[in-house]
Amino acid sequence: MNQSIAIIGGDLRIVKLAEMLAKDKFSIKTYALEEAESLKKIKEITLCGTIEEALQNVDFVIGPIPLSSNKQQINTPFSKKEITLKEFALQLKGKKLIAGSIQKEFFELLQEGTEAIDLLKREELVVLNTIATAEGAIQIAMEETPRTLHGSKVLVLGFGRVGKILANMLKGIGVNVYCEARKDADLAWIKAYGYEPVRLKKMKEQLNQFDIIMNTIPALVLGKEELTKMKQDSIIIDLASNPGGVDKLEAKKQGIKMIWALSLPGKVAPITSAEFIKDTIYHVLQENEK
Amino acid sequence: MNQSIAIIGGDLRIVKLAEMLAKDKFSIKTYALEEAESLKKIKEITLCGTIEEALQNVDFVIGPIPLSSNKQQINTPFSKKEITLKEFALQLKGKKLIAGSIQKEFFELLQEGTEAIDLLKREELVVLNTIATAEGAIQIAMEETPRTLHGSKVLVLGFGRVGKILANMLKGIGVNVYCEARKDADLAWIKAYGYEPVRLKKMKEQLNQFDIIMNTIPALVLGKEELTKMKQDSIIIDLASNPGGVDKLEAKKQGIKMIWALSLPGKVAPITSAEFIKDTIYHVLQENEK
Amino acid sequence: MNQSIAIIGGDLRIVKLAEMLAKDKFSIKTYALEEAESLKKIKEITLCGTIEEALQNVDFVIGPIPLSSNKQQINTPFSKKEITLKEFALQLKGKKLIAGSIQKEFFELLQEGTEAIDLLKREELVVLNTIATAEGAIQIAMEETPRTLHGSKVLVLGFGRVGKILANMLKGIGVNVYCEARKDADLAWIKAYGYEPVRLKKMKEQLNQFDIIMNTIPALVLGKEELTKMKQDSIIIDLASNPGGVDKLEAKKQGIKMIWALSLPGKVAPITSAEFIKDTIYHVLQENEK
Amino acid sequence: MNQSIAIIGGDLRIVKLAEMLAKDKFSIKTYALEEAESLKKIKEITLCGTIEEALQNVDFVIGPIPLSSNKQQINTPFSKKEITLKEFALQLKGKKLIAGSIQKEFFELLQEGTEAIDLLKREELVVLNTIATAEGAIQIAMEETPRTLHGSKVLVLGFGRVGKILANMLKGIGVNVYCEARKDADLAWIKAYGYEPVRLKKMKEQLNQFDIIMNTIPALVLGKEELTKMKQDSIIIDLASNPGGVDKLEAKKQGIKMIWALSLPGKVAPITSAEFIKDTIYHVLQENEK
Repeated sequence: MNQSIAIIGGDLRIVKLAEMLAKDKFSIKTYALEEAESLKKIKEITLCGTIEEALQNVDFVIGPIPLSSNKQQINTPFSKKEITLKEFALQLKGKKLIAGSIQKEFFELLQEGTEAIDLLKREELVVLNTIATAEGAIQIAMEETPRTLHGSKVLVLGFGRVGKILANMLKGIGVNVYCEARKDADLAWIKAYGYEPVRLKKMKEQLNQFDIIMNTIPALVLGKEELTKMKQDSIIIDLASNPGGVDKLEAKKQGIKMIWALSLPGKVAPITSAEFIKDTIYHVLQENEK
Repeated sequence: MNQSIAIIGGDLRIVKLAEMLAKDKFSIKTYALEEAESLKKIKEITLCGTIEEALQNVDFVIGPIPLSSNKQQINTPFSKKEITLKEFALQLKGKKLIAGSIQKEFFELLQEGTEAIDLLKREELVVLNTIATAEGAIQIAMEETPRTLHGSKVLVLGFGRVGKILANMLKGIGVNVYCEARKDADLAWIKAYGYEPVRLKKMKEQLNQFDIIMNTIPALVLGKEELTKMKQDSIIIDLASNPGGVDKLEAKKQGIKMIWALSLPGKVAPITSAEFIKDTIYHVLQENEK
Repeated sequence: MNQSIAIIGGDLRIVKLAEMLAKDKFSIKTYALEEAESLKKIKEITLCGTIEEALQNVDFVIGPIPLSSNKQQINTPFSKKEITLKEFALQLKGKKLIAGSIQKEFFELLQEGTEAIDLLKREELVVLNTIATAEGAIQIAMEETPRTLHGSKVLVLGFGRVGKILANMLKGIGVNVYCEARKDADLAWIKAYGYEPVRLKKMKEQLNQFDIIMNTIPALVLGKEELTKMKQDSIIIDLASNPGGVDKLEAKKQGIKMIWALSLPGKVAPITSAEFIKDTIYHVLQENEK
Repeated sequence: MNQSIAIIGGDLRIVKLAEMLAKDKFSIKTYALEEAESLKKIKEITLCGTIEEALQNVDFVIGPIPLSSNKQQINTPFSKKEITLKEFALQLKGKKLIAGSIQKEFFELLQEGTEAIDLLKREELVVLNTIATAEGAIQIAMEETPRTLHGSKVLVLGFGRVGKILANMLKGIGVNVYCEARKDADLAWIKAYGYEPVRLKKMKEQLNQFDIIMNTIPALVLGKEELTKMKQDSIIIDLASNPGGVDKLEAKKQGIKMIWALSLPGKVAPITSAEFIKDTIYHVLQENEK
């Protein structure tokens, strides 16, 4: 590929992404990234003084992930510059923006002929990110327990994307893996992959045997009653987004160690995360090729 | 459990199922199974002389899998008796039938208050059966090749249920597993599970490296052009139901060995199959309990 | 490599080996292989009319595996010619012979400056052959049982080379693997690899739970008492060389199915076997290079 | 079991061990452990005021691991008391001591009829400890790299005990595992277990592809020349005991990150370590039973 592309704002993952795209021979114009020192020595990358210059003659624009944290400006942690969402939308006219967590309001600001693609709505990126999430959860489990994971009993709550990959990796390092699910079909999958199925209805009776419980369900599954049945020295790693799946006050009261671990991919594996974003962007480019 | 249940007709798997249910202390009345010798010595099983007698005072009736092969009579390979679908529907009045591959026409024959549940529409049974299908495919591959699977290169076409479990087992015995898919999200899953992803569009260029190709897609994927690119001594195992995924005439012409393997669970693992059916029936019973 | 090599006698694996060496650009002279049709079309291979012609100007000679079955002549299944061990030893003067199962008596026939290397004493070939042995055992288990291996309980007797690789592959396809050993250190390895350790002393009490028992110990481990404790419908696969590890008469008396499976590599995977032999010969050649 | 046993001195693992033995209904007398608060509430444990009292009427004595760090006194981190090796040897008369790293000199101090068993010479404990070592190495790799281990390329140097278990676990979480060895037989094992074999002689040419190198060889394998060939952002985890396998000064000069990780079992998994010690002690007790 030998295409021009603009990159506006963004965090460390976007910086790493710019380096990777340059290596793949894209010609890149950046704006609002002037404090990313590593980009200055790369000949394929041009730091532009204005957003207009950066956007001139390019079809594709890569923006921050997430696009904005305050609903006013786009995220530019590597810059002193401020770009409002409104201005950004105006500048993008006729181009295609690829960014993350784009809010409904921003789509409404876009002019006709402009397109915005939300990376975090791309199923393949969500799946790839679960690899880093699962590995981050395993790292935390290793750090927080005085036992080897090998040979211990771990219960994974929920058999969605994260549950599936997490169970697979846990089994790979020698854990006795138990997976909880509600649906008969999921329990059949759990059996097919060689984990021990635990039916939600019968979970309570079995809670006292686990060394670690890893939750992926974003709804209260470990309440007072469940926490009471757990082993005193077991630990809980909650991977579910707000409000999580654990009654945190109650866990504290009962002295059960709980770690609420969010946004693991960016924290434990920023480079791998950037690679996943790159792959996904390439898919988007290919789909827009003809 | 200590419930009465009727079993009418059915093949070897139904016979094995009757034995298992008896072991679990069900009281069983059978009809149209009088040639199944093993059932005669079991005290929990009563062979009835008429269908009326068998159905008396029971709520649940287990029928053949599939229910009928000729759209006239139900399947009764262990009996000289003939039972038309029409008569069977009449007798079932007010009861619940559990059978397999029940055709639309039969549902229309049922009277009010009668219910028929198709086991083969239960997702959990479909998933469990893929275990036996995958293992059967591996057995065939071992028998038909002069190489070890360990260390060989195998391409799995399609990443649906069978593709997923097959890839998992192949990797487990040391195969270099490649999985073909069309969707980016599936390719991400393939990577997450540690197989080599092969994008459908780029499959052709890679075909010459595989020792074995296993197809799970019920549509023509290996046509003349693809077959030409394969290694002369590679073999194809086609697991897809009619019409399969291979141009069979062309494969023959080119001298490429092809095995079309259908209905593997009943063939390679009848007892495990019967156990899966039993588990599924128990789920149905539990759901109907209250 | 572009070396001359002589191949004298041998079976199908030696024929396949000759084809592979020719592909790797060795120049090959054969004798006592005149009925191997596939070799006649290969330009790197010369069929010689006399053994003298074949051995002229070569340093390395590949002979049969095993060298002889009757202690009189070398094995020449692809030839009408007869070569006595005595004559063969004379002809080899000053050269290096690579063959299999070379008996002590033959070494005594060799003249000064002649060397004979027994392939089957090479540890790497023995290890590689266990891959094919393990896979052959799994194939037999799949063929002989009406259950899936996945989810079944298998006991592996002995944790030597075959036991180790067999356990690894069985676990890979979803078997619940139990390994028997006598020594504490072996039991620790078994635990480290994630199998269930079974102490020889306590084996008897546990025998009634296994679907399949695979023996690798060449000494009587399953005698009358042990056989009595096994499940009636379990099966035994005996991989141990003479006298095997099972009281065969007693097994028959008790109606327990037993398969005594020997020499699996050549039977289930002749091509992979030939490749392993080739790799080992290359190691021998490299060691003799300087 | 309902035996009396004495425990003299020792660190946190010995304290945990005492708790476990008490749970298994041993009656325990301790000396030089008076600062281990957790032991005071356990009714099976008696804190003795003198060593004579502790040793009275017991056959087995458990001592520190290692027995001594200064060749003068035994290790008593949970006590203010000092016990010289000479005095300890005298007191042990006629009993059996089980401890760790017992030096030759101590054996010479023992009186007739006294026996000392070095736990760290027990092969099964050494093997079990590799589980914790391998898991500790994986934890460090996760913490020190901005990538996921899943999908990365890792070279394991040395295929002894730690190398074997480490490779097995790394593969289990989705690493592309390469193993270096010198002997053909080890390379065959590496292939059989499904890792990529790297011959020591050819290692240098391949060094530039690895994200992480884990060394288990206690001799200089990564010197100046090797370090020069590595990727700049790769990291080295050295698990080999003194002097390790890496030229540390040179690694620093070249800016290659290196972690020298020793004594991992006690650090990352003290409870699992204590369990392994307990299992090994039970084996010793059983062997001494009759």
